[in-house]
Amino acid sequence: MNLQNDLLLRAARGERVERTPVWTMRQAGRILAEYRAVREQAGSFIKLATTPELAAEVTIQPVDILGVDAAIIFSDILVIPEGMGLPYKMVEQRGPVFPRTVRTAADLESLRIADPEADLGYVLDALKIVKKELNGRVPLIGFAGAPFTIFCYMTEGKGSKTFSVAKKLLYTDPEFSHSLLQKITDSTIAYLKAQAVAGADLLQVFDSWAGILSPEQYREFSLPYIKQICDAIHEVPVTVFAKGAFFARKEIGELSCSVVGLDWNMDIQESRELIPNKTLQGNLDPCALYGNFEQIRAEVKKMVGAFGTQRYIANLGHGVYPDTPPDNVRCFIDAVKEYSQV
Amino acid sequence: MNLQNDLLLRAARGERVERTPVWTMRQAGRILAEYRAVREQAGSFIKLATTPELAAEVTIQPVDILGVDAAIIFSDILVIPEGMGLPYKMVEQRGPVFPRTVRTAADLESLRIADPEADLGYVLDALKIVKKELNGRVPLIGFAGAPFTIFCYMTEGKGSKTFSVAKKLLYTDPEFSHSLLQKITDSTIAYLKAQAVAGADLLQVFDSWAGILSPEQYREFSLPYIKQICDAIHEVPVTVFAKGAFFARKEIGELSCSVVGLDWNMDIQESRELIPNKTLQGNLDPCALYGNFEQIRAEVKKMVGAFGTQRYIANLGHGVYPDTPPDNVRCFIDAVKEYSQV
Repeated sequence: MNLQNDLLLRAARGERVERTPVWTMRQAGRILAEYRAVREQAGSFIKLATTPELAAEVTIQPVDILGVDAAIIFSDILVIPEGMGLPYKMVEQRGPVFPRTVRTAADLESLRIADPEADLGYVLDALKIVKKELNGRVPLIGFAGAPFTIFCYMTEGKGSKTFSVAKKLLYTDPEFSHSLLQKITDSTIAYLKAQAVAGADLLQVFDSWAGILSPEQYREFSLPYIKQICDAIHEVPVTVFAKGAFFARKEIGELSCSVVGLDWNMDIQESRELIPNKTLQGNLDPCALYGNFEQIRAEVKKMVGAFGTQRYIANLGHGVYPDTPPDNVRCFIDAVKEYSQV
Repeated sequence: MNLQNDLLLRAARGERVERTPVWTMRQAGRILAEYRAVREQAGSFIKLATTPELAAEVTIQPVDILGVDAAIIFSDILVIPEGMGLPYKMVEQRGPVFPRTVRTAADLESLRIADPEADLGYVLDALKIVKKELNGRVPLIGFAGAPFTIFCYMTEGKGSKTFSVAKKLLYTDPEFSHSLLQKITDSTIAYLKAQAVAGADLLQVFDSWAGILSPEQYREFSLPYIKQICDAIHEVPVTVFAKGAFFARKEIGELSCSVVGLDWNMDIQESRELIPNKTLQGNLDPCALYGNFEQIRAEVKKMVGAFGTQRYIANLGHGVYPDTPPDNVRCFIDAVKEYSQV
C-alpha cells in the first residue's frame, strides 16, 4: 500500500523531504485523556498492551489528535522476556517487576528463544490492525529494547538507578552474561522481523540503559548485539537510540542502521560530525514542553536550525513526560512543521 | 600542622608525587561494619550526621581500616537547605524527603542565607574533631553540593529519575530559578569557607545531577554558580565533580579549581585532552569492585596506565556501592598504591 505521508521513511533513507517529519516517543500514552480512557477500560497496562484491538486504538490516537507523521505501536520492551518465558507485572508507582530473575546457568537454561507467532502474536495482531486502520496515512513504527537493556531488567528484576545487580554479572560472570545477551538477541531479531512482516515500516531499537556502562563495557556487552540486529534486518530501515551513550556515537554511526537517535545531552553539531552518514532523530529535552507556546516555538526553531531540515527526524530526546499538556505537544509538532519547510 | 601524608594535596596542586593518592567517595559509610555499628548507635542517619563526635568517628574509620590517603567528612549535601531553613527527613528505602518545597517567590523569601556557625556548626565541630584526631596522618576533605543539585532537591522535594518538577521551573520561571540558585550559592560559599577554617584541606563540590541538563541549560543554570564558588575559595584547593556533564568538561576545566572529577562514562584520554591543565580524579565504575581481586587489580592497572601517575587522584567514578565487600575496596586501594609507584 502506498503511503500518503512517507516523510519519515524518506528522511530515514536519506532522501530529500519538503519538510522534516516529526513524532514523539511515548506519544501513545498517558498525556492523552483519550488514552487514559482506554487504559481504564482495559483495567491494566499489561491487559491494554496484550489486547490487540485496544493497543491498536491507542496507537492511532496521536495520529488523529496530535498530527504526528508516524504511529508507533503501543507495546512494551519487556514483552521479549515475557515471550522467552520470564513473565513480569507492572506495579503502580513502581514500574515493572519480575517475580523470577535470571542469574544462573539453570535460570538461563529454563528460557526459550521467543517465537514471535506463538509467544508475541498479540503484538503482531495489533500491528496488523493498526496497519489496516491507518490505511496508509502515516508509516507505522515497530520497536524492541536493545539486548543489554532487556538483560538489565531480566537480571535485576526491576527498575534501578544503578542496575548494580545486572552490572555485577557483567564483571563476575561475563560468559553467562554473553549467553543471556545472545538468547535475547536471537529472540529480538525474530521478533523484529515478524513485526516488519506484520506491517511495521521502520523498527526502532531502544537501549534505554546504555548510559550506565563504561565505554569499554558498552563495546563488549551492548554494541555487538545491536550490530547483530542491524545486520539481520533488511526488510525496513532501523533506528538505534542508545540513551546516554554519548561515548559510542561514532561506533553507533558505523552500524548498518539508517537512523541514530540522540538525547538532549548530546550536542547536535558534534553529533553530526561523529555520525556523518546517517539520519539523526531527536533531541529536545522533554521538560522544554513545560514552557509556554512562545518558549516551545523558540526551542524548536533553534533545534531545527541546528539539525537542518534534511536527514533529520524531529523528536524529543526521551519519551514525553506524562504530565505534559497535549496542547504543548501539539505546539511542538506544529512548530517543527512550520520551521522545517524547505 | 604538617601532614605526614600530603600526597592528595600535592597531586591537587599539580606537584610531583612518588605515587598516586587514592580514596573513594562514600568510603565513610555502609560498606563498613564499623560504620553500621555507629549508625545503629546514633539511631538515624541525620542524628549521626548532626552529632559531631559520631560523625568524626565514622569519618576516620576508613583511614584506619582501608588505608586511604584522605578522610572526607561524614555529612550530607542536604545540610545546606537545612541551614537555609528548609528541613528534610531521610526515609529508609526512599532517600531524602522535604516536607516543604521551594517553588514560589514567597517560598524563596522565607529562606535565609545559611550562617555556617549558627546553622551548620555541627559540621564545623565534626571537622575540628577529625582534624585533631587525625593528627596530621592524612588530609581532610570537606564538601558541598553544587547549587544546581541542591536546587533540584529543594524544588522537587525528593529524589527523582527525571527531576521534572525542578527542570520545569528552569523553563517556566528562569528568574525565580536564578534567585534561588544565587541564594544557595551564597550559602554554599560561606559554608565552604567555614569548612576550610575548621580544618578542611581540600573542598569538593558535587554536582550529582549535572547529567539531567542539556549543555545549554548547564551553561545557564549550573556552571556560573560553580564558577562563583571556585572564584570565591582561595583558602584550599577545590575539586569539581559534575556527574554526567561530559559535555561541559572543557568549560569545567577552565574554572579556577584545582581538580576535576570524572565518572566512568568519560574516556580518560579524551578527558585529559579536554582538561589539559588540571589534576583529574576518578573514575572506576563502582561495579568493577564486585569482581574478584585479580579482576579488580587488572582494572586498576588499566586505569592508572591511562591516567598516568601524576596530576591524578585515584577514585571511583561515583560513591562506592553499599554492598561492596570491604576487602574488595582494600584491594582497589592497595592496587593503586602498587601500580602507581613512580
